Amino acid sequence: MRRIRLGMVGGGQGAFIGGVHRMAARLDDRFEFVSAAPSSDAARAQASGIELGLDPQRVYADFRAMAVAEAERPDGIEVVAVVTPNHLHHAVAGAFIDAGIHVICDKPLTRTLDEAIDLVARVRKAGVLFGVTYTYSAYPMVRHARELVESGALGDIRVVQVEYAQDWLAEDIETTGQKQARWRTDPALAGEGGCIGDIGTHAYHLACFVTGLGVTQLAADLATFVAGRKVDDDAHVSLRFDNGARGHLWASQVATGCQNALALRVFGSKGSLSFRQESPEELWYTPLGQPTQRLTRGGPSLGAAAAQATRIPGGHPEGYLEAFAQLYREMADQIEARHAGRACVLAVPGVQAGAQGMHFVDAAIRSHRQGGAWVSLEA
Amino acid sequence: MRRIRLGMVGGGQGAFIGGVHRMAARLDDRFEFVSAAPSSDAARAQASGIELGLDPQRVYADFRAMAVAEAERPDGIEVVAVVTPNHLHHAVAGAFIDAGIHVICDKPLTRTLDEAIDLVARVRKAGVLFGVTYTYSAYPMVRHARELVESGALGDIRVVQVEYAQDWLAEDIETTGQKQARWRTDPALAGEGGCIGDIGTHAYHLACFVTGLGVTQLAADLATFVAGRKVDDDAHVSLRFDNGARGHLWASQVATGCQNALALRVFGSKGSLSFRQESPEELWYTPLGQPTQRLTRGGPSLGAAAAQATRIPGGHPEGYLEAFAQLYREMADQIEARHAGRACVLAVPGVQAGAQGMHFVDAAIRSHRQGGAWVSLEA
Amino acid sequence: MRRIRLGMVGGGQGAFIGGVHRMAARLDDRFEFVSAAPSSDAARAQASGIELGLDPQRVYADFRAMAVAEAERPDGIEVVAVVTPNHLHHAVAGAFIDAGIHVICDKPLTRTLDEAIDLVARVRKAGVLFGVTYTYSAYPMVRHARELVESGALGDIRVVQVEYAQDWLAEDIETTGQKQARWRTDPALAGEGGCIGDIGTHAYHLACFVTGLGVTQLAADLATFVAGRKVDDDAHVSLRFDNGARGHLWASQVATGCQNALALRVFGSKGSLSFRQESPEELWYTPLGQPTQRLTRGGPSLGAAAAQATRIPGGHPEGYLEAFAQLYREMADQIEARHAGRACVLAVPGVQAGAQGMHFVDAAIRSHRQGGAWVSLEA
Amino acid sequence: MRRIRLGMVGGGQGAFIGGVHRMAARLDDRFEFVSAAPSSDAARAQASGIELGLDPQRVYADFRAMAVAEAERPDGIEVVAVVTPNHLHHAVAGAFIDAGIHVICDKPLTRTLDEAIDLVARVRKAGVLFGVTYTYSAYPMVRHARELVESGALGDIRVVQVEYAQDWLAEDIETTGQKQARWRTDPALAGEGGCIGDIGTHAYHLACFVTGLGVTQLAADLATFVAGRKVDDDAHVSLRFDNGARGHLWASQVATGCQNALALRVFGSKGSLSFRQESPEELWYTPLGQPTQRLTRGGPSLGAAAAQATRIPGGHPEGYLEAFAQLYREMADQIEARHAGRACVLAVPGVQAGAQGMHFVDAAIRSHRQGGAWVSLEA
Repeated sequence: MRRIRLGMVGGGQGAFIGGVHRMAARLDDRFEFVSAAPSSDAARAQASGIELGLDPQRVYADFRAMAVAEAERPDGIEVVAVVTPNHLHHAVAGAFIDAGIHVICDKPLTRTLDEAIDLVARVRKAGVLFGVTYTYSAYPMVRHARELVESGALGDIRVVQVEYAQDWLAEDIETTGQKQARWRTDPALAGEGGCIGDIGTHAYHLACFVTGLGVTQLAADLATFVAGRKVDDDAHVSLRFDNGARGHLWASQVATGCQNALALRVFGSKGSLSFRQESPEELWYTPLGQPTQRLTRGGPSLGAAAAQATRIPGGHPEGYLEAFAQLYREMADQIEARHAGRACVLAVPGVQAGAQGMHFVDAAIRSHRQGGAWVSLEA
Repeated sequence: MRRIRLGMVGGGQGAFIGGVHRMAARLDDRFEFVSAAPSSDAARAQASGIELGLDPQRVYADFRAMAVAEAERPDGIEVVAVVTPNHLHHAVAGAFIDAGIHVICDKPLTRTLDEAIDLVARVRKAGVLFGVTYTYSAYPMVRHARELVESGALGDIRVVQVEYAQDWLAEDIETTGQKQARWRTDPALAGEGGCIGDIGTHAYHLACFVTGLGVTQLAADLATFVAGRKVDDDAHVSLRFDNGARGHLWASQVATGCQNALALRVFGSKGSLSFRQESPEELWYTPLGQPTQRLTRGGPSLGAAAAQATRIPGGHPEGYLEAFAQLYREMADQIEARHAGRACVLAVPGVQAGAQGMHFVDAAIRSHRQGGAWVSLEA
Repeated sequence: MRRIRLGMVGGGQGAFIGGVHRMAARLDDRFEFVSAAPSSDAARAQASGIELGLDPQRVYADFRAMAVAEAERPDGIEVVAVVTPNHLHHAVAGAFIDAGIHVICDKPLTRTLDEAIDLVARVRKAGVLFGVTYTYSAYPMVRHARELVESGALGDIRVVQVEYAQDWLAEDIETTGQKQARWRTDPALAGEGGCIGDIGTHAYHLACFVTGLGVTQLAADLATFVAGRKVDDDAHVSLRFDNGARGHLWASQVATGCQNALALRVFGSKGSLSFRQESPEELWYTPLGQPTQRLTRGGPSLGAAAAQATRIPGGHPEGYLEAFAQLYREMADQIEARHAGRACVLAVPGVQAGAQGMHFVDAAIRSHRQGGAWVSLEA
Repeated sequence: MRRIRLGMVGGGQGAFIGGVHRMAARLDDRFEFVSAAPSSDAARAQASGIELGLDPQRVYADFRAMAVAEAERPDGIEVVAVVTPNHLHHAVAGAFIDAGIHVICDKPLTRTLDEAIDLVARVRKAGVLFGVTYTYSAYPMVRHARELVESGALGDIRVVQVEYAQDWLAEDIETTGQKQARWRTDPALAGEGGCIGDIGTHAYHLACFVTGLGVTQLAADLATFVAGRKVDDDAHVSLRFDNGARGHLWASQVATGCQNALALRVFGSKGSLSFRQESPEELWYTPLGQPTQRLTRGGPSLGAAAAQATRIPGGHPEGYLEAFAQLYREMADQIEARHAGRACVLAVPGVQAGAQGMHFVDAAIRSHRQGGAWVSLEA
């Protein structure tokens, strides 16, 4: 299968989400990362480019120049990932849309509603593909939740409870130089909405994605609990849905003790669902008048939607892949250390550990053959 | 950073663990996959090679030929991943060891203890690196558990409870053509130990890895519950450790209702730990006489060992990366469909979904400015 | 210790909460149940009185007559429990207040706000004691939660999330003759508030009780999802507290899959708390920047408030008392059956079961003395 | 319904389990507690008798005298509860058995196996009823578990895992004057088995009770981790059942971080069950190849056995009764303080709290009628 040529704007040294996009793009081996504008500072852009293993000629300080140049190359990028702070999404995405290049853009879409409306129009005009990384909609159990609702298993949806609670802004870390906090609490960079934009939009999308419903009216109580902060850090939003369902969305970045506590509950006339992002392998489903069922990724009774988003068997939480990758990373470190003549003691189990396993099996079989007697491991 | 040249034996069409190894090798972008012996059948080997995007000249039907040829090439593989059924581990790993190529080998190490002892000797002689994929030892919270034990936080270890329970062999699916079940229940392919070898070795390694203790004596009660099966499908093993601690290991593949329920509990004179692989983001720690603490990946009070195995922030379970990858995969599908002129309707959120998020933020701020009044979403 | 003389209005045949009040009154042996007005129908009142083992002379059909008569007796009741449907609370409680008798009254206090205000005034005038059974405020871990907030451990309270979700009214069972449903959905008997009064008041009291805060403003969205129902069956209420904290209260009786899912979370500037009534033995406490702690009834680090409400040791959930009572009940059944010459085979373990335990201990010690060898139970 | 006359031996001042027995006997109002031998010291016996509200003539220092005297009275006790330390069970129970009085006896049955065998014979000869308080067998969900196994829902039982883990003896508190620890670690008072007798017998009974199976063979590894202790404080016991099932029992009183972690898992050819005593409201049931179900006390799909042991509705954990009792206890304290002219400020919600609930309902309805507008609570 050929690989799609991918570019990236943002995601240079010190950034967070750019690295996540790159790991994600590698996982299924469908993309080839060939170009980037990682910084508007030319020297820093080139330094990042070298770290990323890119051809220096395809590393740009100016994203507009990148859009033009890549659109002209016969081997130019087919799609760009936009991973800058929010205030640049509109200009960056716009430049690539206009150049006829597909876009993968982080959320929230833009800094203002007007910018968002403008992007919608330009995407339509240019005819390019445009994806927004509302990541949580891609968990297998979220896909299954949506499929269950669509199937009618819940009956008419009556109540929707969604929340996204974090605590990383419980204190004013934006004044202490924390880069992620600084831009997210600056309306000029993040938009007027603070918490409501940064994570409220995730919760909102998740609720609409799973239920298939739209919100017609809302009433919001936004609060700023940390003194001096310029945007909301807590948002309570009452919701009325287009089918008459009621709901509530709570987003908070001052919810002490919460890391990324995104949770959705949907109650219908025939059943209910509950999903917590921090335990993404499970979905709780209760048909009215029957016991609650714990549905698991890869487990019994799941359908096609979950299967399509599943790579590894049930019971191996998805961190299994990362654990596997960790062993490969440590093996790489060992190989490179050996290559360079450096000492390197790492945790990856070695052939001795492998042999110990066989000693164990051997002793177990010896004991078993003696009717379960105690035996020593060194036979 | 340069990429290490990687080969693979096994993992052709229809295999499971080979694909996991390849995703793992890609995640951190430290390896370049350049050669394979995916099948002993030449035609099938070439077909798999094409699927994997390999140079046909570096796709082999004979792993011995591969070891020799790759060792001779100046751009030959530096390390090979052995992902065949157990009975081939010894011959395959041995061929590459003798060719001076590093090895990453799946577990259990070999089919018999003698083969394992032989490999240990040959690794020592050849001086190559050899890693065994006891994957569970690489979870961040397992690394932290080990660090806690080493730090003395648990005092003297007294009791170790470890278990690995599955139910996929609760019925005799090996007679129905299920490939994974067939070789794992055939002593000629899997070894004398069935369940004890396949998953008991994982549990055994995890217990030793975290506690730093060795087992000196054991008493085993192996059972075969499914009629006609030739290997054990359930194993109870009582353990005595080298420091006087006692323990029990239970491995079962007939434990109805369990997917991959690997769990470890360690009790010491000053505290205890509990880890469940199916919830790998958390580790429960109780200092004697104090409340139980829920330690989380990326959360407060973790140390260097966990950090070294952590890629993404706390509260984003590691499946977050897969969800992200899923959006990229779906974007790739859309781009390819567009490329080929095919229709393709997929779940990846589009620019409209992005704009809906901005409509939501805008309405929330409008409501808030009106003292929390209800407002419509279409302003 | 002398026992206090207790009367009851309501709680006759077919009632639910009256029996709970009586068990509660017996548990600590502080009350003597001596009088009742279990029904306004004289014959049914007497029948209930006999079942309850009361002196027929002290069983009344008219609660007003009961108040007068008992107030005049030298051995008259000192306190009355009011366990009627809501619409009678005002008249019944009022009659006993005016007779100078203390009152224990079920919640919600009355059918209307005016009635409640009237009761407050009459209690003040009569100088009697008056308790409302907001039961959930008496759980040991709720008492501890309140103590933690009072101690300042949470800092300034910022956000309060409280909910009480049930599903027993998800369908229109009030039209099928279900007695509990019928009066609770009839505004003439229950009051104008349906779900908001029946369980919303519990959630509201719990939030105020634990935080020590008052609510100054609210915005409510009440809904009736079951066609034909005359009161709300779902209530979303946004809250503003007197210290500036924000919050949300959700009460629902159509929340499919929920039994009595009362839950409270309190987030402050220095820490947070989470309590779920369905797991009342535990309270989750997170100091900002530290791991979450699982506090348990009877466990480490609890204070005086929880201790004062605790009867049995930690780790024995309070259902332990009921299990114990069950064995006594079954022993009573056996004794009575024996008394009456009837056969009676019940689950209470007998002397054989006791002896089997000793066989087990004996065999364990025999095995141990043989170095852990397998032994048979019949020595 | 008449009340059965109950006596008690043991359970005087400073004792624990006697008070539990008395609360249990009161809960269903089936017993009248009329006689006791709370201490072998005459003065202490009388002091305890006064506290317990007993007729001084029926308080005894000598249990043998009590058995004789009560057997002769026309209103003598019908049943005696034996709540002494283990070493007295045999003599005490024997005296009452021989006097023709029914017995409720704490576990383990006796100090030695010989004593147990003797009691079995004497019960048979005397024809009295004899109950052993294996309390955990009386939880509703344990009763349901047994019913499920009996129904064949699990198929053939293959594996049984049972454990009872505590940590209260993790240090040598028996040398510090802790009374419960002292007699439990003294073989002369507790018997040869320490942990294996004290809590191992509970686990053993639970496993046999639920599965209906008997144990034919076992292999035990008993350990004493606390220096100087004279009995085992940790027991690993491998089990073979009469139907061929295998199992393991772990009992420990040095399991740091565990309070009363009694847990049972049963795996059969068609399904499995899991019960944890510390969450006694739920039972996890997995039919092979289907999602795991969370069965709850009072919830859907339960049968007659659980119903027979259930007093209050589902979702109200059984601690609900205790919380209710707590309010009654606090009301009693207030009444007595008033009676005695003492001040008494307690947590029981008063009429003001009741009225606040009605203010809340009133405000919610006002807001709702204004389309969900914010309103103040003081109208």
